[in-house]
Amino acid sequence: MAAERDRSVAPPTISEVAAEAGVGRASAARTLGGYGYVSPELRERVLQAAEKLGYRANALARSMSTGVSHTLGLIVADIGNPFFAGVTRGISDFSRSRGFDTIVLSTHEDLEEEKVAVGVLMDKRVDGMIIASAAVARGEVAHIQDAVSRGIPVVLVDRAVEHLALDSVVIDNREASRRAVSHMIERGHRRIGFIWGPAVKKPITTRRALTAAASQSLWTDGERLNGYLDALDDAGIPFDADLVMTEPKTEENATAAVARMLALENRITGIFCTETDGMTGALRAVRSSGLRYPADVSLIGFDDSSWAAVMDPPLTMIEQPMLELGARAAETLLHQIDGATPSGKMHTLETRFIERASVAQWRP
Amino acid sequence: MAAERDRSVAPPTISEVAAEAGVGRASAARTLGGYGYVSPELRERVLQAAEKLGYRANALARSMSTGVSHTLGLIVADIGNPFFAGVTRGISDFSRSRGFDTIVLSTHEDLEEEKVAVGVLMDKRVDGMIIASAAVARGEVAHIQDAVSRGIPVVLVDRAVEHLALDSVVIDNREASRRAVSHMIERGHRRIGFIWGPAVKKPITTRRALTAAASQSLWTDGERLNGYLDALDDAGIPFDADLVMTEPKTEENATAAVARMLALENRITGIFCTETDGMTGALRAVRSSGLRYPADVSLIGFDDSSWAAVMDPPLTMIEQPMLELGARAAETLLHQIDGATPSGKMHTLETRFIERASVAQWRP
Repeated sequence: MAAERDRSVAPPTISEVAAEAGVGRASAARTLGGYGYVSPELRERVLQAAEKLGYRANALARSMSTGVSHTLGLIVADIGNPFFAGVTRGISDFSRSRGFDTIVLSTHEDLEEEKVAVGVLMDKRVDGMIIASAAVARGEVAHIQDAVSRGIPVVLVDRAVEHLALDSVVIDNREASRRAVSHMIERGHRRIGFIWGPAVKKPITTRRALTAAASQSLWTDGERLNGYLDALDDAGIPFDADLVMTEPKTEENATAAVARMLALENRITGIFCTETDGMTGALRAVRSSGLRYPADVSLIGFDDSSWAAVMDPPLTMIEQPMLELGARAAETLLHQIDGATPSGKMHTLETRFIERASVAQWRP
Repeated sequence: MAAERDRSVAPPTISEVAAEAGVGRASAARTLGGYGYVSPELRERVLQAAEKLGYRANALARSMSTGVSHTLGLIVADIGNPFFAGVTRGISDFSRSRGFDTIVLSTHEDLEEEKVAVGVLMDKRVDGMIIASAAVARGEVAHIQDAVSRGIPVVLVDRAVEHLALDSVVIDNREASRRAVSHMIERGHRRIGFIWGPAVKKPITTRRALTAAASQSLWTDGERLNGYLDALDDAGIPFDADLVMTEPKTEENATAAVARMLALENRITGIFCTETDGMTGALRAVRSSGLRYPADVSLIGFDDSSWAAVMDPPLTMIEQPMLELGARAAETLLHQIDGATPSGKMHTLETRFIERASVAQWRP
């Protein structure tokens, strides 16, 4: 049972605040409700009076009367991923500058938890939602469609979801991957490992089976794989299924996959990692194989960090514009809360390729 | 203006769900309300019926009638810090296992934002709050006391705040630091840099001035500094203000401070870093000084990560039990929501000292 709460102390009313401030009730209501124009001088007096009396706007009551709670809801797949932490910061900074608070729920990449989270945000009467969804298939988006059908603006971030005519704010995953892999190919590499592809139960041997599996996994993963394939195609390098990791995505599995690729008779000379744990796993495998980078094997990773820059040699990385991604998603959502019609467009932001010292010319 | 919302479609009632499931209304209400006992079999039937009919519990209405919203609020100083991301995960995993959702707000270490966040959580009718507070002084805790005085259970995490008789769940900052610094002293080091101490405006020359400044900064920072001083005291090593960084806490400042300490006539031979950005800054300074670790200078840092383990040589680090810290805070809060009286105790969890290869015996 819940402890008894003391709800008996009556909070001050807007009229009492207005009297204390010596202003009209309408000015006090506009100031405390955060709508309409109030002169800076009056506004200041109202806020001081409100503070003195301990007035706390009942956002819930305000929400019920005005339909706006000045709160955005954010659902991210994994708040423990520095990428999502950065996006979260971008969203909350931007929304705060417009007078909106952001409440966050993390789903651990679990679709069931995501469904619950959408329900929680509806119950909390958010004005709109930004979702980095774990959904990949048509049948998995009913909870998002449900929110939309209830008139709640929804914007997707990081991950587009097919079958949903919503605005999404994403990065150029495919082009970023193509550019990184081409960078190695231009330096003589033809055997380039891809860490990591879609996780599959049975080993995959054909390119068609791989892209089919990718289309059943997260949109970002599929795009990054396609960028890798684009670079091979551009250079006329045949696809080799042995060079794509398809085990579940853990650092340990990345270590094992890279060790296997380094032990091939025709071994890899370059490694492209699409996530941080893939890169740390690859580094472990390179070291325990007794090889050095970049002399023996070249490395490029996704998601720059201060650690990547202080590795010795420092790592060539793809930097995602996390803050900008969040800010753009918040801006798009606030437009819709203000009444704009969703465009259903994909807003694509550019990544930055940071060349450091983990790629070397390959001389067979 | 907000877009019009369609609230006209009447949602199914509990009675309709009960009829669909073929169970009594009380069983349906208990299942959907998340209280009391319902047999697994009946529960399953009710949930299936609820899903079929598209029933969504109105948590708000439930909250108003029962006083429990089954939502915890979490306020963290910086969600972009992997440490807080881990703590957040620990809290949400534990609370979810008890049927509570967790909504998160991040304050960017800004006390004003923290005050707003407490207000948002009260408006959202959370059943309790967990706060990693940016407050350090007696005059800065009124917003927390305000929540407590309204009967809302509050537990502090990571950072104890003096003057508040609340339960707090923290790590053994002082002992962890003492042990790390002693580890270097036992290997012959006597000149050990501390990155980073309290940021001050004027240079500090005495130990008394330093500890006074630390008492005006975050509790964790003060504790870590005291652990450093404890280790020096244990070994009879005199305090030297030149070896404590007191600039604002950025990677750039850490690089400059370590470069300065390495250029001293009687230079440092060991560096203890209390945060990740301090460590990456120190690594930059070591490298640009043309020195190697651990041969020329030893290194220990706070907050282990997968990157620290793949550095070459791998770094000796202090690992914080982030998930456990979060779980314990959630457990303590849920006890209070269930009616337990706050103990006002500090619950201290142990860190783990992970010895790798960044500390060497010092031979002058």
